[in-house]
Amino acid sequence: MLTGLQPAVVLVNALDLIGTFVFAISGAALGVQRRMDLFGVLVLAFVTAVSGGILRDVLIGALPPASVASWHNLALALVAGLLVFQFHPLLGRLRHPVQFFDAAGLGVFAVAGTQKALAHGINWPMAAVLGMISGIGGGMARDVLTAEVPTVLVANIYALAALAGAMAVVAGYQFGWPPTPAALAGVALCVFLRLMALYRGWKLPVAGPKGG
Amino acid sequence: MLTGLQPAVVLVNALDLIGTFVFAISGAALGVQRRMDLFGVLVLAFVTAVSGGILRDVLIGALPPASVASWHNLALALVAGLLVFQFHPLLGRLRHPVQFFDAAGLGVFAVAGTQKALAHGINWPMAAVLGMISGIGGGMARDVLTAEVPTVLVANIYALAALAGAMAVVAGYQFGWPPTPAALAGVALCVFLRLMALYRGWKLPVAGPKGG
Amino acid sequence: MLTGLQPAVVLVNALDLIGTFVFAISGAALGVQRRMDLFGVLVLAFVTAVSGGILRDVLIGALPPASVASWHNLALALVAGLLVFQFHPLLGRLRHPVQFFDAAGLGVFAVAGTQKALAHGINWPMAAVLGMISGIGGGMARDVLTAEVPTVLVANIYALAALAGAMAVVAGYQFGWPPTPAALAGVALCVFLRLMALYRGWKLPVAGPKGG
Repeated sequence: MLTGLQPAVVLVNALDLIGTFVFAISGAALGVQRRMDLFGVLVLAFVTAVSGGILRDVLIGALPPASVASWHNLALALVAGLLVFQFHPLLGRLRHPVQFFDAAGLGVFAVAGTQKALAHGINWPMAAVLGMISGIGGGMARDVLTAEVPTVLVANIYALAALAGAMAVVAGYQFGWPPTPAALAGVALCVFLRLMALYRGWKLPVAGPKGG
Repeated sequence: MLTGLQPAVVLVNALDLIGTFVFAISGAALGVQRRMDLFGVLVLAFVTAVSGGILRDVLIGALPPASVASWHNLALALVAGLLVFQFHPLLGRLRHPVQFFDAAGLGVFAVAGTQKALAHGINWPMAAVLGMISGIGGGMARDVLTAEVPTVLVANIYALAALAGAMAVVAGYQFGWPPTPAALAGVALCVFLRLMALYRGWKLPVAGPKGG
Repeated sequence: MLTGLQPAVVLVNALDLIGTFVFAISGAALGVQRRMDLFGVLVLAFVTAVSGGILRDVLIGALPPASVASWHNLALALVAGLLVFQFHPLLGRLRHPVQFFDAAGLGVFAVAGTQKALAHGINWPMAAVLGMISGIGGGMARDVLTAEVPTVLVANIYALAALAGAMAVVAGYQFGWPPTPAALAGVALCVFLRLMALYRGWKLPVAGPKGG
């Protein structure tokens, strides 16, 4: 019975690893840009990759968090950080793929976070919020540690894309859809919105006089 | 037997809702001022309203935190954020009422946080600290997310007012006073100290040469 | 049987108190430097002294954290903060002893944090990370609250010294060494690396063109 799900589970796990890896890259890249030493770069890679999931797990009481109970995400983040430290000049050329994988990681984390929150009995509005937090928490921790205004709060449709992905999972849960298509739809929705914001300039209104 | 307490419980609950609402307004107002988009404003409203209580609940091990286990505070914060986004020019004119409600929210959160910590068996000095954290945590999270020095650390008698309110609850607990008058005294003490700081310039000493 | 350990336990407890005290001093000193009032200084002293241990305890699910379950660390941090507030001009003259005790505190917290994480069944790579977090968390919280880039991410061999101390404990655990010599070796290793960084300029490589 589970055999039918296996390809999808493999897919989600693969995307989860990709998400961890890409977020670690984004943290390490900021560390290199700020001229941190190797160790600071690795710390920032790890923090960016796992903070979202850790915050979610603390808030639903799933302690110790998954990224603490296992060392896999640590290993993956260290590999990503070492690669960035060594080959960072390449990152400029890889901007488009990195942005795509970042959007994919955002969607995967948001979807997986929502599923985990629902599985722990959290009400659906807060489950969607926790899914969003899973997606954006790593970037927020990265920005707070480097004393920047978190980009999730100023970037065009970043947190909102994560929330949209989370809402797809919640809708599927409410209406009894099979979980795998709902999860894939959530990831796709998040990636779509994020890429539209990046390449078509979609954005939300800002309050106040337009002149700024 | 509980009937006698009911008016007081209703009062405390009403004040708790007011506190959540007012703190959400203060977060949303900062978001508008920083020209964040609608979504960033709503996130900041929610974070400001619930971070203090969430931090307290994590630290006493009451997981998931009350603001995660229920969606009511989320809804209230979103309404407050939408109102600020739409009607923010009014906020300048409402400065005095907002400051009063902010002081009231601070006191209510400090008192309720202390009561919850004591009920979870925390020793009284740390229960008072946790009450203070409940009151000031939202403002601290708001300031950290927007890369400001938390005003609770520099404002005249802000955290101290929260601590004073918390200490009133602790004193009542130690000396066996009935909880409701102790709670109301704590809120009143916090509001009084905060308003004295705002309108009479009460403040604590600063170390070092006066010339600065 | 435990009698043989008693001197070592007393030593570790004494070092733990020294670590709390010294970290509180470093937080209070930054508060004075930023011209915070007495209360802000005390808050910063407490936050710096206990945040690392609290973060560790939350992440391993040991709730409420030790610094919440008891009021001893609070009292110690307040005493340290009051002393700094009163006698801060002395701090400049005491720079070398303070740096030494800070390194000792870092090592003690890293070692004790690793031991606690291992005792809670955490895998050894993450136990070492949690030990490091116990050591550096207080300084990170201090810097985030004052809107600085955390020095642990830019200072020469600070977090790395903590991690080295933690790894000594992990090595002892893996190879079945008696815990007390492993702990003392960890503290000594951390102090040695930190002092080499401070007085001999040991540092890690930075990525990118040397010209900066």
